[in-house]
Amino acid sequence: MSEGKVRAGYVRSLDIKHGQVDMAHGSGGRAMAQLIEELFAKHLGNEYLAQGDDGALLPAQGAGKLVMATDSHVVSPLFFPGGDIGCLSVHGTINDVAVMGAKPLWLSAGFILEEGFKLADLALIVQSMANAAKAAGVPIVTGDTKVVERGKGDGVFITTTGVGVVAPGRELSGRCAKPGDAILVSGTLGDHGMAIMAVRESLGFESPIVSDTAALHGLIATMRDSGADIHVLRDPTRGGLATTLNEITRQSGVGMMLQEKALPVNPAVNAACEFLGLDPLYVANEGKLVAICAEQDAEKLLVAMRSHPLGAAAAIIGRVHDDPHHFVQMTTGFGGKRIVDWLSGEQLPRIC
Amino acid sequence: MSEGKVRAGYVRSLDIKHGQVDMAHGSGGRAMAQLIEELFAKHLGNEYLAQGDDGALLPAQGAGKLVMATDSHVVSPLFFPGGDIGCLSVHGTINDVAVMGAKPLWLSAGFILEEGFKLADLALIVQSMANAAKAAGVPIVTGDTKVVERGKGDGVFITTTGVGVVAPGRELSGRCAKPGDAILVSGTLGDHGMAIMAVRESLGFESPIVSDTAALHGLIATMRDSGADIHVLRDPTRGGLATTLNEITRQSGVGMMLQEKALPVNPAVNAACEFLGLDPLYVANEGKLVAICAEQDAEKLLVAMRSHPLGAAAAIIGRVHDDPHHFVQMTTGFGGKRIVDWLSGEQLPRIC
Repeated sequence: MSEGKVRAGYVRSLDIKHGQVDMAHGSGGRAMAQLIEELFAKHLGNEYLAQGDDGALLPAQGAGKLVMATDSHVVSPLFFPGGDIGCLSVHGTINDVAVMGAKPLWLSAGFILEEGFKLADLALIVQSMANAAKAAGVPIVTGDTKVVERGKGDGVFITTTGVGVVAPGRELSGRCAKPGDAILVSGTLGDHGMAIMAVRESLGFESPIVSDTAALHGLIATMRDSGADIHVLRDPTRGGLATTLNEITRQSGVGMMLQEKALPVNPAVNAACEFLGLDPLYVANEGKLVAICAEQDAEKLLVAMRSHPLGAAAAIIGRVHDDPHHFVQMTTGFGGKRIVDWLSGEQLPRIC
Repeated sequence: MSEGKVRAGYVRSLDIKHGQVDMAHGSGGRAMAQLIEELFAKHLGNEYLAQGDDGALLPAQGAGKLVMATDSHVVSPLFFPGGDIGCLSVHGTINDVAVMGAKPLWLSAGFILEEGFKLADLALIVQSMANAAKAAGVPIVTGDTKVVERGKGDGVFITTTGVGVVAPGRELSGRCAKPGDAILVSGTLGDHGMAIMAVRESLGFESPIVSDTAALHGLIATMRDSGADIHVLRDPTRGGLATTLNEITRQSGVGMMLQEKALPVNPAVNAACEFLGLDPLYVANEGKLVAICAEQDAEKLLVAMRSHPLGAAAAIIGRVHDDPHHFVQMTTGFGGKRIVDWLSGEQLPRIC
């Protein structure tokens, strides 16, 4: 992308109000340069994009290890209560970098547009990305745009890649959970997934369920500043908390026991889940994290999380233990136990 | 992605020979973990993917500046003479990093799969990516997979992002062309675009036109070892040589004069272009570069390029000059002059 200080000689400005994406916008030629200048660079503009080369030249990071994460976003609908595919694609990738202990530094964005997509909607999405990137302090430094024929895409897909830096010894991984550790979540479960499902299924609640989409690196910085000995962070997105905890038990070679009554779930999310036959444990979050920390630091970490707006409803939800089967189990409200298995089947397609 | 040393308890192996992508493969659950383990990690596996976290933890690069580039790939058809979307998505992003003067280090890959896509074709594509990444010495360190419903995608789209490192003072940019500089290309023009078009239009040549898709960082290392004072490198992909040179004249604030008779074009590509009413100057390349260097070093650079297999047909094709209009012009075979304008309209949709 280029901010294009010297214009490529366009006869007219893009008609963003009434225009549509056409195949020429993916050609590599004049129409694409115009789309980049008048829409992408206009909103996303920063010193790196302004370099105008095929990639971005970025500052050296010295002794810091690098972290790289990528996510393709295909959420449907593109706009939903609490957000849209634009801010979601910024938050999701920032979070993947941040939960590894890194400070997110830069993002790239690859757009796959469908012919006929409204430029007005594209502009809203790009503005939302720009606002999210600015609020997070993580600029989109390079990008790409492709166009596919009508019926070969679905409006817009956005793939973001994030790069961050982590000071030596500060790395986090899903491999570091230890028997005895406490398991915490930063807030209510299933808000993002049920916000999407409520729109799709036209569920008529008095107040809509709102996605929790948010960048978590600020919350994580607060948590680390507390001095608690954090072993694992992870954002429970697709597949929900159940899937994320099963991944961690597998990576770390441990088991887990959750307390059902300790799991924070919004009443409206609970109601929608019951109505649709879904379990909030398997529903996607986009602004929540799981933290696993040394047992003796659990209360200190909880206090730190609750001191941050994105962790106000944080809770201690269970413990890590030895288990050669790497099961996630749960003590239910009735005092029984059940296995919280991997998600089987699709449950919620195109949730992010 | 996780190599998954501990299996998630699948009942059966993936049926790669007869199976298809279904929505569950994008769910975040058991089916997705199985697809990642038995297909992606099997072929792409390396120490970074094996970390199994949401991103990859990568070594520090000290004083080296970083370069980040991204490309979404939507080429149609997915398989073509000389390559497929898999190797293309590796080569294209490596080249974007390499033309900035950087050593490409790592790639990420985001897959958007259409429900019903054959797993056998997906396996061929992933194998092709793996082979290309291995040959280039640039591992795919992290990735993501999403699935969209039948009719909302087109088989597979792949977005790759590359990160590289460049020693201080070795950066290259399209902003550094200077009046007097020589313009070189590394080989014949338009091979990739016409390989795609010949398949699409079922042009029956005796021998098919073969895509030039290739990773150029080895050629670039040879060129830099020559000691020639290289000012700009760029790979002329979508929009072809004409578009790339117009981008550089705009970035550098200069003009250019090309010699038509110096432009290397394969006879079969020329014939196909004439048949379809296309101009090879606007047709995409995926294994060629433009180099702009100090006038006195042009011959030395040409010799270096020709010493490398990917530069055997390299040629000096023109000069940079002062021009307040930033025009790219060409002396034609008949001795006249014409302006080589930006590509207008779409010419070749979904070429990469």
